[in-house]
Amino acid sequence: MFHSTKQQLFVNPPAATHGYARPSSSGAHRLKLAARLYTATSARPLPSFPCVAQHAARENRILSLRASSSSDPSASGPEPPYARPSPSSYQTYHHNKPLPLTYAEPLPEFDIAYETWGTLSPARDNVILLHTGLSASSHAASTPENSAPGWWEKFIGPGRALDTRQFFVICTNVLGGCYGTTGPSSIDPATSKPYATTFPVISIFDMVRAQFALLDHLGIVKLYASVGSSMGAMQSLAAGWMFPERIGKVVSISGTARSSPSSIAMRFAQRSVLMADPNWNEGFYYEGLPPHTGLKLARQIATITYRSGPEWDIRFGRQVRPLSSSETTEKQHTPPCALIFSLRRTLTTRRGEQFCLKYDANSLIYISKAMDLFDMTEPSLVALGLSPAIPTPPPTVSSSPTRAHPPPANPAPHLPELAAGLRPLANTPILVLGVQSDILFPVDQQRELADALRMAGNSRVSYYELGGVWGHDTFLLDEQNVGGAIRGFLL
Amino acid sequence: MFHSTKQQLFVNPPAATHGYARPSSSGAHRLKLAARLYTATSARPLPSFPCVAQHAARENRILSLRASSSSDPSASGPEPPYARPSPSSYQTYHHNKPLPLTYAEPLPEFDIAYETWGTLSPARDNVILLHTGLSASSHAASTPENSAPGWWEKFIGPGRALDTRQFFVICTNVLGGCYGTTGPSSIDPATSKPYATTFPVISIFDMVRAQFALLDHLGIVKLYASVGSSMGAMQSLAAGWMFPERIGKVVSISGTARSSPSSIAMRFAQRSVLMADPNWNEGFYYEGLPPHTGLKLARQIATITYRSGPEWDIRFGRQVRPLSSSETTEKQHTPPCALIFSLRRTLTTRRGEQFCLKYDANSLIYISKAMDLFDMTEPSLVALGLSPAIPTPPPTVSSSPTRAHPPPANPAPHLPELAAGLRPLANTPILVLGVQSDILFPVDQQRELADALRMAGNSRVSYYELGGVWGHDTFLLDEQNVGGAIRGFLL
Repeated sequence: MFHSTKQQLFVNPPAATHGYARPSSSGAHRLKLAARLYTATSARPLPSFPCVAQHAARENRILSLRASSSSDPSASGPEPPYARPSPSSYQTYHHNKPLPLTYAEPLPEFDIAYETWGTLSPARDNVILLHTGLSASSHAASTPENSAPGWWEKFIGPGRALDTRQFFVICTNVLGGCYGTTGPSSIDPATSKPYATTFPVISIFDMVRAQFALLDHLGIVKLYASVGSSMGAMQSLAAGWMFPERIGKVVSISGTARSSPSSIAMRFAQRSVLMADPNWNEGFYYEGLPPHTGLKLARQIATITYRSGPEWDIRFGRQVRPLSSSETTEKQHTPPCALIFSLRRTLTTRRGEQFCLKYDANSLIYISKAMDLFDMTEPSLVALGLSPAIPTPPPTVSSSPTRAHPPPANPAPHLPELAAGLRPLANTPILVLGVQSDILFPVDQQRELADALRMAGNSRVSYYELGGVWGHDTFLLDEQNVGGAIRGFLL
Repeated sequence: MFHSTKQQLFVNPPAATHGYARPSSSGAHRLKLAARLYTATSARPLPSFPCVAQHAARENRILSLRASSSSDPSASGPEPPYARPSPSSYQTYHHNKPLPLTYAEPLPEFDIAYETWGTLSPARDNVILLHTGLSASSHAASTPENSAPGWWEKFIGPGRALDTRQFFVICTNVLGGCYGTTGPSSIDPATSKPYATTFPVISIFDMVRAQFALLDHLGIVKLYASVGSSMGAMQSLAAGWMFPERIGKVVSISGTARSSPSSIAMRFAQRSVLMADPNWNEGFYYEGLPPHTGLKLARQIATITYRSGPEWDIRFGRQVRPLSSSETTEKQHTPPCALIFSLRRTLTTRRGEQFCLKYDANSLIYISKAMDLFDMTEPSLVALGLSPAIPTPPPTVSSSPTRAHPPPANPAPHLPELAAGLRPLANTPILVLGVQSDILFPVDQQRELADALRMAGNSRVSYYELGGVWGHDTFLLDEQNVGGAIRGFLL
């Protein structure tokens, strides 16, 4: 069986492409031939590598999808193989005025996709703007137009954390995304082709500016609250900072006001892997094959950072196992890759497969870079020429930490600069919630954020730490504790 | 300047290969052409990607090295571009009897490379066997034959942690390595070609078995101590377990007796990235170009796991910066990748460049897999049919935890099984040293190991935790505290 699989790999031309599967060059063919000759003379059969073969199989699926769709005249033309959600499942606002950008000349025009839940009150004063993490769409919860569960399904609805009996919830796809909002895969009106990597560098502040263009269009002057987790927490903080008079409350869950070097390193590794896929082609892959292998590998690295060691130990500890009986019969020839851990199945799930076919690789690059660049310390904000929409008002309650929360004995290194940067948030009630097992936005950063806000004069900081073993993903999973804290804070 | 760089990228054919740089297929040329046509019609110039261009530059360097060496008749034939240390700088023992393997049929014969420091006592009772981490050679410290500093230079010598006035220190290159000991890049005597991925799966126990074949050859019956850090600590524990009568003391620094799912996940990600490089070619790259890009990317991920968040914050926190003034002049066109962080320079160092040219990719795959498979819990050992060289002796001092070290209140999930597995180590004095900022071998695992050893009846467990911010790399850097603990324990 081992032999026949291998035979198939070599006999079947499509399966013989592998790895970052692009049509093999003559050099690769020569190597393949060498490997075949090698087997003929070797006492040992050639091994098989299911984890590598997976990439080739995916490439073949994409190619055959292409072939079948090109036989349909209505589907002619270069069509990216990742499928956007149906445009009928969300609303789109087209902003036809320039959007100022932090690092680049203004974007001449843009679309922003959004979905809503609940009912806008006549006074338009019950609006919650919900911000997404890196790769999420506007589909935070199911709607009549799209019954599929959303990424925060259990947190939105009657009686839930964002109670739709009371609130009108708006969620947008972020600027730079690929689910209806303008991003690198969108058509550049100047060229009628996708922007690709000519798309300008964007910041978290730019994402928020685009959201407020939508709010202006909807006639919403003031938000009841701005709510976000992970990168959404960055946006939530940035929104409260840019528009302090237009936001009632800010919620930051497992976020940060200053990206840490270790989280930047994790994202750098993901982008490096993605950009090394030849299919990426410096971002110009929209007329070719997308870098699905690079995106899959990047996603694997991300997945590792989303959970915690303790949880994996509980979940997989007893399943890390030696070879099974069927494997030991051919153990002589089993290459390292063929020893299957339950863990590997988790890292190479169907959801991961979906992701690397549906999500746009350039969006990952631009949005993860925007996260890296996020830094609300005062020197950084000054260097960027950023300032809030209105001058910082004097703190209304207290200009110093409260008696219950004196300044920390061992302040984080950047605390004073961060406190200075966060001054425009001094008068906004803020919920800061962190998770002790989070390795991507570690709990130290949550404490730093709460400390800096208090040092900036904010006396209405609600701060919670959660235990548990779910790490960064806690915000998606712990409805009881995360949801409960939000519900209590919003009342 | 931005434009001219780009022009160069497209005009100069070698630089135009990029990413996992293999000679571009016609498909890639078509895309390149599309990108060029794109520029002609676009208002926006094409961006440049220095981090991707680096891979192409390296490929060109390898190709030109090949070209120049092939003009030298003495250097003809396929020569892997990674350079082994000169064989004259270490000693080699050729074992011409079969070596039993945990997961495969015996290896018919093998070489093992080693270096020594100090003087063997007439009674041959002053020997310390030093085990290496994943990618290190036998060159732990400088020698008359090789004056280059070794990987543990400051820990070996007169008056140092391994005091050469007292001890005779032996360090070997591990089985599966590429620095003189037999591994996947070695010639398979059955075929006269490199094993490549026909090399059998190896275990930590197999590495130790190979070392003891060397000790037999050298006439060394009993070791004064077995010492190792990281993967070396796994070998050190395995040695004490397999040959309890032949080892006086065991030192385990930042190791584990049971690989954790999160560390397995980190190594899985590294292997996935490496194996996705088309140059890897299912392991048969010895006649072609090595997967230098995949190895570089894998090394980047590893580097992230070797240090800790706090240290990076101190080192880079203030250098994470927005665009410099020179960058802002062309900020409109600056792609995300061109925003330089000091951090990136650290992840793409010259040492990393050296590594991806000198180290054998298949060795990384086999050895990191051996780490994944390491599990000294009793069910795992039983499943593998492993047993120590002699029956487990009854504990000599006490069969229960001491009064100073009662059983832990919240035992780690696998503690009882691990304690049962570690019974053969019950009578060996052991130093377990862990680092609180280590994210690869977290301090929880150090506590688990010490607890399990005590639960197994070992009353001579010395256990220390180090603070500091160096993470897993502490064992390479903290001469004072790591070295001090070892020196004290060995006396």
